[in-house]
Amino acid sequence: MLPKSIQTAIDALSDLPGIGSRSAERLVFSLLRNQTGLSDRLADSLGKLSESVRECQACHNYCESELCPICQSSREHKRICVVESPIDVLAIEKTHEFKGRYHVLHGVISPMNKVSPDDLRIASLLQRLQASSETEEVILAMSGNVEGEATALYLTDQIHRLTNIKVSRLARGIPSGGDLDYLDVGTLSRALIDRGEV
Amino acid sequence: MLPKSIQTAIDALSDLPGIGSRSAERLVFSLLRNQTGLSDRLADSLGKLSESVRECQACHNYCESELCPICQSSREHKRICVVESPIDVLAIEKTHEFKGRYHVLHGVISPMNKVSPDDLRIASLLQRLQASSETEEVILAMSGNVEGEATALYLTDQIHRLTNIKVSRLARGIPSGGDLDYLDVGTLSRALIDRGEV
Repeated sequence: MLPKSIQTAIDALSDLPGIGSRSAERLVFSLLRNQTGLSDRLADSLGKLSESVRECQACHNYCESELCPICQSSREHKRICVVESPIDVLAIEKTHEFKGRYHVLHGVISPMNKVSPDDLRIASLLQRLQASSETEEVILAMSGNVEGEATALYLTDQIHRLTNIKVSRLARGIPSGGDLDYLDVGTLSRALIDRGEV
Repeated sequence: MLPKSIQTAIDALSDLPGIGSRSAERLVFSLLRNQTGLSDRLADSLGKLSESVRECQACHNYCESELCPICQSSREHKRICVVESPIDVLAIEKTHEFKGRYHVLHGVISPMNKVSPDDLRIASLLQRLQASSETEEVILAMSGNVEGEATALYLTDQIHRLTNIKVSRLARGIPSGGDLDYLDVGTLSRALIDRGEV
């Protein structure tokens, strides 16, 4: 019923995570209604994504040159924060609490999804740690789920086997502004065990 | 901090209605992670939108040729359903309750947003009604808000002035599956006034 070009755009948009076919319909019709050339701007910017973006040779974050701006910067070499994906770098940068460098794994170990350590940027992390004498601490900033925990355990083991660099991980506890009675048992237990004196 | 091509794509996506900068970030990073060429497919389909899609000469719905498939079809000429926008045609078609033709206004009369009757496809509707001897009924399917009501009133007046075609509008009442205590007073009053014997 719909013109082919509209249907094709709806189908492509609804392949995005979190966008169902109804939202995709609304988005396409609003693009058609839009008079500012947004659809062309969007097409242009999305078309350039895959050709412009590549992985930093050092930390594997997304960038447009051989090294990402952080690896090119003068930020301290003492601490490396290991994250699952480039969007996590963005999240941590927004806190302004971390002055070190990153290493992006591009995934977590997940036997269910057939992701083994060899599919991640783990070998290059270990190589990086062995090559540098400046690194004092590796901060594991994995997600709090089973796969994140398993990846953190695996990394801790590998790093301890090859180097004597300190390995730390993000604190567990109640989120800021979180209501106690909405928290799961695991988080609350962790927060109790790791309680700090004030 | 982000590579320019990523930031540009985030900015363009967050100009879409209902997509904030955080969702746009997540979408762009998931496009970068996607291995199936979705970003190129999306870029391609959105780029073709503005060049392929135009308005049907008769009903002003979106189409790719001079007349839309519905205007080219053998559907009955007796009833014309007037809607605000092409997405409303889609919504009504999904009900399978309407066998007639459409007329798309591309907006509603709204002095607040400086939209006057001349900015809408109203002249062409009146022309279409005067030119055809087959039309027996015009169904006004505007939204239930103030601007929709005002547009419906204006159209009723114009159509009655020029023709003696019957003008009807969508029924008002409680939505299917709607809880009475969540309904606004206006809808509930209307549903009471228009109650039907069973």
